[in-house]
Order: sequence, then structure tokens, then C-alpha cells
Amino acid sequence: MDIRTNYNSNNYTIHVGHSIFETYINYYTSKYNDVFYLIDEYVFDLYKEMFLTFENVIKVPRGESFKDIYHVMDTIDFLLSNEIKRNSLIVVIGGGATGDAGAFLSSILLRGTDYIHVPTTLLSHDSSIGGKTAINRPLGKNLVGTFYRPKGVIYDLNFLETLSNEELLSGFGEVVKHAMLNNKNTVNHLIEVTKNKINLKELEPFIISGIKTKMYYVTVDETESNLRRSLNLGHTLGHALEYEYKLKHGHAIILGLLFTLFLSNKILDTQFDLNYYKKYFNTIGYNISYLYDLAEDNLINLMSVDKKNSVSNMINFVLLKDYGVPVFKGIEKIKLKKYLKEFQELI
Amino acid sequence: MDIRTNYNSNNYTIHVGHSIFETYINYYTSKYNDVFYLIDEYVFDLYKEMFLTFENVIKVPRGESFKDIYHVMDTIDFLLSNEIKRNSLIVVIGGGATGDAGAFLSSILLRGTDYIHVPTTLLSHDSSIGGKTAINRPLGKNLVGTFYRPKGVIYDLNFLETLSNEELLSGFGEVVKHAMLNNKNTVNHLIEVTKNKINLKELEPFIISGIKTKMYYVTVDETESNLRRSLNLGHTLGHALEYEYKLKHGHAIILGLLFTLFLSNKILDTQFDLNYYKKYFNTIGYNISYLYDLAEDNLINLMSVDKKNSVSNMINFVLLKDYGVPVFKGIEKIKLKKYLKEFQELI
Ligand SMILES: NC(=O)c1ccc[n+]([C@@H]2O[C@H](COP(=O)([O-])OP(=O)(O)OC[C@H]3O[C@@H](n4cnc5c(N)ncnc54)[C@H](O)[C@@H]3O)[C@@H](O)[C@H]2O)c1
Ligand SMILES: NC(=O)c1ccc[n+]([C@@H]2O[C@H](COP(=O)([O-])OP(=O)(O)OC[C@H]3O[C@@H](n4cnc5c(N)ncnc54)[C@H](O)[C@@H]3O)[C@@H](O)[C@H]2O)c1
Repeated sequence: MDIRTNYNSNNYTIHVGHSIFETYINYYTSKYNDVFYLIDEYVFDLYKEMFLTFENVIKVPRGESFKDIYHVMDTIDFLLSNEIKRNSLIVVIGGGATGDAGAFLSSILLRGTDYIHVPTTLLSHDSSIGGKTAINRPLGKNLVGTFYRPKGVIYDLNFLETLSNEELLSGFGEVVKHAMLNNKNTVNHLIEVTKNKINLKELEPFIISGIKTKMYYVTVDETESNLRRSLNLGHTLGHALEYEYKLKHGHAIILGLLFTLFLSNKILDTQFDLNYYKKYFNTIGYNISYLYDLAEDNLINLMSVDKKNSVSNMINFVLLKDYGVPVFKGIEKIKLKKYLKEFQELI
Repeated sequence: MDIRTNYNSNNYTIHVGHSIFETYINYYTSKYNDVFYLIDEYVFDLYKEMFLTFENVIKVPRGESFKDIYHVMDTIDFLLSNEIKRNSLIVVIGGGATGDAGAFLSSILLRGTDYIHVPTTLLSHDSSIGGKTAINRPLGKNLVGTFYRPKGVIYDLNFLETLSNEELLSGFGEVVKHAMLNNKNTVNHLIEVTKNKINLKELEPFIISGIKTKMYYVTVDETESNLRRSLNLGHTLGHALEYEYKLKHGHAIILGLLFTLFLSNKILDTQFDLNYYKKYFNTIGYNISYLYDLAEDNLINLMSVDKKNSVSNMINFVLLKDYGVPVFKGIEKIKLKKYLKEFQELI
């Protein structure tokens, strides 16, 4: 399945499928005189034999540890000393973190070098679209970055087979979010095929619709002032939980989504069945128990320093008027504390 | 005088004049909740009293030393710890180097923060337009950067009065280049008013026409594949001389321009009066003697690693068919060596 972006310019194709790596690698690299591969060191070890014929392979620090300016600069210097040119191609192979840092590197090297991304995790379906690149700083995640698009994305789902259960659950959080931002049908169908267990074999259509849903929100608003903010569904509390309890991103998002549904019922009079979702998330492996004893004050503090929230006594949330109908609401901190307490008792 | 850019989007105004700093600083900063000033430490010391009322002033390392990733990251962390937000404004005050690094910083901080530039050197008339940001790496100048535009440029020419003669001559090199890329009239008029000495008071119209000329070449081709390359007039040999003899940029460009005129006479049958130019440049303070005993082989090596030249036995030059009529020519290295020798004998 090929998904073509629909920006005003600099469009690219996201190829999604099984066993498509070789074909598309050949297709893209054949257009360039020289090609440099940046590969997550862990992914490299797992899939060595697939990279045997590549020249110019650079193993980069695993996952999040590459999202660091010193590693990025070291890699840049190494590429420069190997005579990378503006018209070379960089191929970034790894999960969302490798993608974020590799794309950032490509965007600043010689003021922009072409790159393609080969995502290797479920979560990185999310980063295949949107053009955000990032590295971390001591004061927080993703505080430095650019907007920069790849020339193509080769999403070979075979890579997902070696993911740990933890990583699978983390990626699945964003799959659920995208389904909720799409429509009721997608949500029901997704729950239907995963109700006992996340089955990789069944996920392909939801990955594809997830990418398309994200593309919709991203292209109606490229600079995040408005509709793009919908993609923060579940993330206001999610990010705070991620930080406070050191949860994997997608785990925290699932908990954040539960709270979002609760808040929507309270504030927008929706009728989302919290109990049903709670059971479902529990069954497929998420640990709901973090929600039983929340440190409300800490969480509210964390939510107010989130870079999407300006300083005030309000915290901004994305709620759902219905599946596929996000609504932005500012909630006073005092009220939010009450809601958080009520939510814990109910859940 | 206000010059408005004519890109497809993200346009801005370059205000050029005397004593305009305060008015326009107030104008731009009044649109933002918080403003952070990055000021070249040397410029800060010279003009302290102009900055007395500013909050959030950060003195940054002087000139070229700020074009370093570690200083840029330190400054970013400091801004973050002072709660800079995506909707804050950064005001960058200093020459081209401060501008390059400050603009790079702004382009990657929170994936892009608004900034305005207050150029304080003659050379920085050149960087007020074009959107190039940059820092240096051990392997070379400007190897890392982005394309990113300011929200405005306030070019108060009063700042130029404290420039050393060295710096004035360096900036004037680009003024001459822009005149040559504009038309014969501008060149003649420029030489007329500066024939004995570079007189700051007389330069304003040439700074303005220089900015407009650069704007023309930049906007007909935003990505440097074609016409924008004209701006490299004099730079192929210039950069090599700059590196080999540790010359100031604009000094090297003047010598590069002389060679360009010589090459144009040879290859395009033009009739530029080399002797006339040589005398003129000498009179106003450039040291032509570097050209008397050139290390041709070194220079040719340096020219071929320039990032604008792909690997081959050819070196690319911008020549002049006439003032304002740049022409691109690849010259074989062997021939180039002969031309360099002939040039030395003639000059
Ligand atoms: N740019 C965006 O729009 C965007 C969107 C979502 C997330 N992100 C970023 O993505 C990151 C999270 O994504 P992620 O979880 O994919 O990150 P990741 O790259 O850190 O991968 C997670 C872990 O899985 C390992 N791994 C990768 N591929 C594997 C495979 N095929 N088999 C086994 N293990 C494998 C990695 O070594 C790593 O330890 C975060 O840094 C987040 O900020 C960015
Ligand atoms: N982005 C672009 O398009 C572009 C174009 C041309 C040059 N540049 C860059 O600009 C730099 C060269 O420009 P520059 O010469 O202005 O650099 P600069 O910022 O290093 O300034 C030169 C020197 O003058 C001092 N100075 C600055 N303002 C002064 C003042 N008003 N009075 C006295 N001294 C002052 C500085 O402290 C410094 O020592 C290079 O790094 C070059 O790569 C960029």
C-alpha cells in the first residue's frame, strides 16, 4: 500500500507492507551517487544479513540515546569526513527515536540533505508523517528540532516481529489514538480484532488508516496552531504520567485516553463506556493500576509546563465530542484536580 | 528605506537607515509577550547605553566564535531555563557571524522561534537576505545550518561607525560584488564616490541596492541550484585565498573578483580593465600583493573541496559576460593552473 502525502510541496510516499524493504531501498538509492546508512545499533544486530551489501553503514546509538546533540554532531563530522555531499542520500533505519534524530541530522547537515526513513517499530508509524524532527535537552524531550520531510518512507512491517511486548504495547497506544480521531467504525473494528491480544498480523489496515488519519490532521494545519493539536488527544495527562511514573510513551497515552473519555463524558455530555475500555486495555496488557493512586498536584504541575500550554491557571485538553470529532477545552487547575479525584474513584 | 522581500511566503521587511534602532525595536517587540536579546559581547560593550532598558539580555561570544554548536546549545539551555516559549521573540544583535548563529539557534529552538536581526557590520548587509543560517564544524565553515527567515531586519547604519578599517574593507568586498552583479551604472557610481577612500556616509544607496540585487538572485531561485549561484561571483578563488592566506572574507573576495574579471576577458572575450580595478582596490586599502606569488596547486585543491563543487577534474566559476550578466563555466584544473600563472604575471 502506498500513501502519498498531500502537502503543498515536497510530497513523498509512505510505502507500507511486508517484505518491501529491498525493492524500495533499491528504488530510492539508485537515484543517488552516494548513500549513507544510519542504523540503530540494536536493529543492526538483529537484521545484519539484510544490510550486508550496503557500503557506508554507520551504527548509531540505540533508540532515545541518539537524540543527543553530541552524538548527532559526531555523526555529522564522520559523514563529512567521508565526503558526504548535498546531493547524497541518508537512509535512516530504526524506530521513532532514530528517525527523529536522523531526520534532524539530515535537516541541518549542509543546510539540508535528502533522507529516507525505514521505521522499524509500531510507534514509528506515527513519525512517518508530520515532518517533525527532534533531539532532547537536559530540560526536556524534543526541545530542539526542525520541520523537515523525508524523500520517502519504507515501512516494512516484517521488522515489527522482533519487537518486545513492551514496545508493541507502546506503539499500539498511538494506533488506538488515531482510530479514535478517525471514526467509530475504525475503533470498533480495531477492538474487535484485538480484543484478546494485539495480533500483529491484523494490524496492517489500522496502521495504514492511522497514518492517513494523522496525515489529515497534519495537512489541514501544518504549523500546529489549530487542528494539528488534535493529535495531542490523551497526551496532556499522558505526558505527565510518562514523566511521573517513567512509563513508556504509548502506555501513558492509553491511560491519558481513558481520562480524556472520562472528561468528555463530564464536560461534553458524551456517553463513552469507561468500564468497557478499562477492561479492554487491561486484557491486552496495559497496567491500569497507575491510575488508582495519582499524585494530582505533581501531575497538574507537569501538565502546566508542557510546551503546548501557556502559563495561566488553565490547562488545555483535547476532548472528543464523538469519535473523529476532537474539541479543545481549557480546564481550570482547581476543577482539574476534582476531576482527577473523581476519575480515580470511578476507575 | 524599507525593502520588502518577495518570496512566496514568510516575507519580511529590511529597514535600512540611520538612528532607526529604537523605533523598530519597539515596533517588533511590542507584538510579543516576551523578548530575549542575544548580543555580540563586543557590540554590547560598545553600545551598552542603547540596551539599558532591555530585560533578558544574553551576551554571546564575539563574532565567529559564536558559530559553534556548544555555545549555541548552552544559549538554548539558558533560554529554556528562562522559560522561552514558541511564541517568544529572539532579537539577534551583531555582525554576520552573530546573525548566522543566532538565526540557526532560533530555527532549531522548539522547532522554530521567531527572531529579528539587527546587523551591526557592513558585511552583514549580505546576510540580511537569503535565509541562510550556519555554524562551523572542525572540517569547515558553515557545514551545519538551516534555511530560516527572520521576522524583520533592522539595519541601523549608525552601528557601522565603530567598525575597524579591516572590517569595513571586508564588508565592502561584498558591496563591490553586488554592484557588479547589478549593472554598469552602479559599479561606476560606486567607484566614483569611493575612488580615494571608502566613505561610510556615501554608502547607504549602495548597501540598499546591494540588498536588492542579492534579493533578486535569491528569490528567482530559493534553493541554490541555479541563478543563486551567481552570488558566488569571486568566491571560488576567494574562499581558497581566504583559507590559504587567512584573509578576511571580503579581502579575499576582492582578489577573487579581480581574477574573475581576468577569466571573463580570457574566456568570454570581455574587455574589463584589470589595471584600473587593481589600482582602485589598492588605493582604497586592499593588499593585492597576495596575488604576486600564488601557490596554484594548493589553491586548486582548496577550490575542488568547496562544497559547491562536485568531484571531477573541473572547477566551477561564475564569470561576467557583462556587469549584471553572470555566466557559469566549468574550467579544467590543468587550464586553470595556466590561467592562474598568466594572471600573476599580468597583475
Ligand atoms: N516525529 C514524530 O512525529 C514522532 C511521533 C511519535 C514519536 N516520536 C518519537 O519516537 C520515539 C519513540 O518511538 P519508538 O518507540 O519507535 O522509539 P525507539 O527508536 O527508541 O525504539 C524503541 C526501542 O525499540 C528498539 N527497536 C527498534 N526497532 C526494533 C525492532 N524491529 N525489533 C526490536 N527492537 C527494535 C530500539 O532499539 C529501541 O530500544 C520518541 O523519541 C518520540 O519522541 C516522534
Ligand atoms: N547568512 C548569510 O547569508 C551570510 C552572508 C555573508 C556572510 N555571512 C557570515 O557572516 C560572517 C562574516 O560577517 P561579519 O564580518 O559581519 O562577522 P562578525 O559577526 O564576526 O563581525 C566581525 C567583527 O566585527 C565586530 N563587530 C560587529 N559589529 C561591530 C560594530 N558595530 N563595531 C565594531 N565592531 C563590530 C564583531 O565583534 C567581530 O569581531 C561569516 O561568519 C559569514 O559566514 C553569512
